[in-house]
Amino acid sequence: MAVNEAITALETLLGERCVRSKSDLDLHGRSESHFPLAPPDAVAYPETTQEVAQIVQICAQHRVPVIGWGTGTSLEGQAQAFLGGVCVDFSRMNAVVAINTEDMDVQVQPGLTREALNNELRATGLFFPVDPGANASLGGMASTRASGTTAVRYGTMRDNVMGLEVVTSDGRIIRTGTRARKSSSGYDLTGLFVGAEGTLGLITELTLRLHGQPEAISAAVCAFDDVGGAVSAVMDTIQMGLPMARIELMDVASVRAVNSYSNMALPEKPHLLLEFHGSDSGVAECSEVFGEIAQGHGGSGFDWATRAEDRNALWTMRHNAYYAILAARPGARAVVTDICVPISKLAQAVEETADDLAANGVQGPILGHVGDGNFHAILLIDADNATEVKAAEAASARMVERALALGGTATGEHGIGIGKLGYMIAEHGQAWNMMGAIKSALDPQNIMNPGKLVPPRN
Amino acid sequence: MAVNEAITALETLLGERCVRSKSDLDLHGRSESHFPLAPPDAVAYPETTQEVAQIVQICAQHRVPVIGWGTGTSLEGQAQAFLGGVCVDFSRMNAVVAINTEDMDVQVQPGLTREALNNELRATGLFFPVDPGANASLGGMASTRASGTTAVRYGTMRDNVMGLEVVTSDGRIIRTGTRARKSSSGYDLTGLFVGAEGTLGLITELTLRLHGQPEAISAAVCAFDDVGGAVSAVMDTIQMGLPMARIELMDVASVRAVNSYSNMALPEKPHLLLEFHGSDSGVAECSEVFGEIAQGHGGSGFDWATRAEDRNALWTMRHNAYYAILAARPGARAVVTDICVPISKLAQAVEETADDLAANGVQGPILGHVGDGNFHAILLIDADNATEVKAAEAASARMVERALALGGTATGEHGIGIGKLGYMIAEHGQAWNMMGAIKSALDPQNIMNPGKLVPPRN
Repeated sequence: MAVNEAITALETLLGERCVRSKSDLDLHGRSESHFPLAPPDAVAYPETTQEVAQIVQICAQHRVPVIGWGTGTSLEGQAQAFLGGVCVDFSRMNAVVAINTEDMDVQVQPGLTREALNNELRATGLFFPVDPGANASLGGMASTRASGTTAVRYGTMRDNVMGLEVVTSDGRIIRTGTRARKSSSGYDLTGLFVGAEGTLGLITELTLRLHGQPEAISAAVCAFDDVGGAVSAVMDTIQMGLPMARIELMDVASVRAVNSYSNMALPEKPHLLLEFHGSDSGVAECSEVFGEIAQGHGGSGFDWATRAEDRNALWTMRHNAYYAILAARPGARAVVTDICVPISKLAQAVEETADDLAANGVQGPILGHVGDGNFHAILLIDADNATEVKAAEAASARMVERALALGGTATGEHGIGIGKLGYMIAEHGQAWNMMGAIKSALDPQNIMNPGKLVPPRN
Repeated sequence: MAVNEAITALETLLGERCVRSKSDLDLHGRSESHFPLAPPDAVAYPETTQEVAQIVQICAQHRVPVIGWGTGTSLEGQAQAFLGGVCVDFSRMNAVVAINTEDMDVQVQPGLTREALNNELRATGLFFPVDPGANASLGGMASTRASGTTAVRYGTMRDNVMGLEVVTSDGRIIRTGTRARKSSSGYDLTGLFVGAEGTLGLITELTLRLHGQPEAISAAVCAFDDVGGAVSAVMDTIQMGLPMARIELMDVASVRAVNSYSNMALPEKPHLLLEFHGSDSGVAECSEVFGEIAQGHGGSGFDWATRAEDRNALWTMRHNAYYAILAARPGARAVVTDICVPISKLAQAVEETADDLAANGVQGPILGHVGDGNFHAILLIDADNATEVKAAEAASARMVERALALGGTATGEHGIGIGKLGYMIAEHGQAWNMMGAIKSALDPQNIMNPGKLVPPRN
C-alpha cells in the first residue's frame, strides 16, 4: 500500500521520530470535541523545516494525506486524520527564532505555545495578546485563525501574523510577508494561509506582531440580573468607543460551572468580565465610564482587580471555563458552537439561543467574547445517547442559521474542520467553490489535510 | 476582431454608456505617474452589479481584457490598458448603500470616493480613516491595498474592509466576508481580493469598518535639524507605544515644495507632522510626551493646532504634497518610490536613500508615513531625457534592493501594477509563482487586468 511505502521512507528519514505505536496514533486521533477517534497511520516529529519539506515530498510522491498537529486543541476536528495519513507533530519545532524588540515582532517555530512565548517575552516589556482558551501552539492558532478574549482590542491571528514560512503541497519552502508593518506587494498569501487549517500547506515559521505590556491594567467582574442587561451594556460600551482590552460574558450556568471548577464564589447571575489596558489615568477613566454604563443596565457587585494575582486568577478561571463546563456533567462530551454576529444583533442572538436551548431541553451554558459579537453555547451531551446528540446538533444548526440571518458567521474563532463543513454553502454560496478552486490549484493531489474546509473533491 | 464583437455586444447592453470617443479612451489610458498613455478599446459605465457581471461575461466570451477604473489615481499603472480591452469605469456606481451606525460599518459601491464617504458620515459621529493622497475611489483603494497617513493608528485597507461583493472572471457574482467583526469560516477571500489590483475579479460593493470620530484631536508640526533626528524621534515614539493617529516626515525639499504650492511658511528644515486622537486629557498627555521626545532629538518650533481649520490646512497641504513636488519642476513626470522597512531600519533606509540620490544627481524629495516605516522619494524626471529616466529608475531599483535587504517590501501602499513587477521575484521568490497559480485558477483566460502583478503567462 502507498501509505506503507511512505512510512518506510519516513522511517528512513526520521528514524525513531516516525512513530506507529497504538498509543501515539490514538493520542493524535482524538480531539477535545465530540468527534470520534480518527488516528493517523503514522506520526512524524520533524525538527527542521527541511525535514518537513522532505516529509511532504514523500507523502506527495505516494499521495498520502498530511495533517499538521500542534497541541490537538482545535474544536472542529481540524487535526484528526479522518482519511488516515501522516500526522506531522510540531512539538519538536517549538523554538523562539528571534525577538526583535525594537520592531515589536518575533519569529517563532509553529510548535511553540502561546504561554511559552509570553514567558520568553516577559523581560522585554512586550507580549503576544491572542489567547484562545487552550494553551495552543502558535502554528495551530494561525491555521484556525484563532482569537480569544483580547481580540476586541488587539485583533485575531489575522491581524497579528505578519509573515510565514510554509511548506507547500509539493514540498517546496516559501516565505510570505515581510517584517515591514504593511505592504501592497501582491496577493496576501499570509492572510490566505492564516485560517486555511493546513489544507494549503504546513506552516513552519511565523513572524508575529507584538504589543507593549500596558503601563496599567485593571480587571473587573460585574453581575447583571439577566443576560439582556449584560449584553446591552456591552453594546453601549462598544458604541461609545471605550477602549476595552477584554469584555467577556458568562451566563448563570457558566458561572455555576466556574465557581465549582475554579473555587470561585461569584453570585449566581450572568456576569461580564472586563479588562482595560492603558495609562494609570486612562484605565481609571475607562473604569469609571463603564461603571456608569453597567449601572444603567442593572449591573451590580462591581469588583475591580488591579493586583496581578487577582487578575490572573480571574482570567485563568475564564480560560478554563470550557473544561469547567465539561466537568459540570461528568462523562459528557461537548458540541461546541461559535457564532459571531454584528454587535447590534448580539442581544437578539444570545436571547433567542438561550430560549431555543431551554425549549428543546438542551443543556448549553453560554459564554463568549461579546465585544466581538462572538459567543459559544457549550452543548453537553452523552455521546452514546442518540436523541441527545441529535437534539444538540439540531440546536447548533439553528444557532448558525440565526447567525447567518443576522449578517454573521458560523464560526468566530474555531474554524471549519469537519464540524462546520455543512454550513459553508449557506454562509458563502459560490464563494465556497472559489475556495475549492484555490485548494485544487495549490494542492492538486488533495493531500494537505483532505476532507476539511473546502468542498469535497469529486 | 474579438474586441470589436465584444464592444458591439456592450453597446447593445449599455447603449451610450459604452464609449469609444478618443477623448474618453485617452482619459482612461493615462496615469499620474510616468507610464506612457495606454488607452483601452472602450470604456463601459455600468450602473449595477448585474451590468458589471454582464460586461465581464461578454468580455470572457470574446477573451477581451477587463480593467477596472475608479479615479485613475493609482501610481503603478494599475488602471492602464497596456493590452487594450474594456475599461470598466465605476463612476456611476458611487452610492452609499447602507450606514450601520450601531455596528460601525458601512456598505458602499466601489466608485464612491473616500472624501464623499466621509461627507456622508459627518453627522453620524463616525468616519473612515484610510486616506491616500488622492481622493481615490474606495474600490480602487481596496484593490491596491491603499493606506495613507492614518495607518499607524487605524490600519490599511487590509484592516478596514470587512467584506466584498465581487464579479469573478466568468461573470458570476460572489460575496466574501460578513458583517460580523471576525470569522474563522474558510479562506480569507476578502483579504485575497484586497490588493489583487483587479486581477482576480471586479469589486462591486464593499463593507467597510468605521471608527468613532475622536472626542479630541490635536495636530502638530515640528522642525528638526536633520532627517536623522526626525526619524529617531519617530522610532522612540513608536517604541514607547504612544498612540499616534498620524506621524509624517517631510524632508527639506518637500517642505520647500509645499511652502510654495500651499502658501505655507514652514522653516526650511525637515519636519514631522503629527496628530493625536483621544480624550482631551489623553491627547494632552500624548502631546507632552512627544514634545519631550522631540526635544531630545533636536526638535524645535513646535506648533500645536487644535482648531479644526488649522488642522485641515495642515493635512490638505500634506495630501497635496505629491502635486506640490511635481509642480516644483514644471513639466516633470515622477518615478514614485514606496519602500517600507521595519522601524528599526528606518533611519538607515532614509539616510542611505538621501545619500544615494545626492550622489547620483537625482532630484527626489523624500516624505512618508514614517510611523509605518514607509516613505517615498518622488524622483522628478524629464520624461524625454533618457539619461535622467535611466538614472531615476536605477535609483528606484537600489531603493527596493535596500528595503528588501533590511527585511522590508518594495511597496508599502502603491502596489505592483506594472511598475514594480520587476521586483516580485526578489521579494517573493517561489511565492510569486504561487500567486500565479491562484491567478490561473481564478482567471484561466487571463482577462482580468492582464499583465499586472502576477508572473507573465507563457
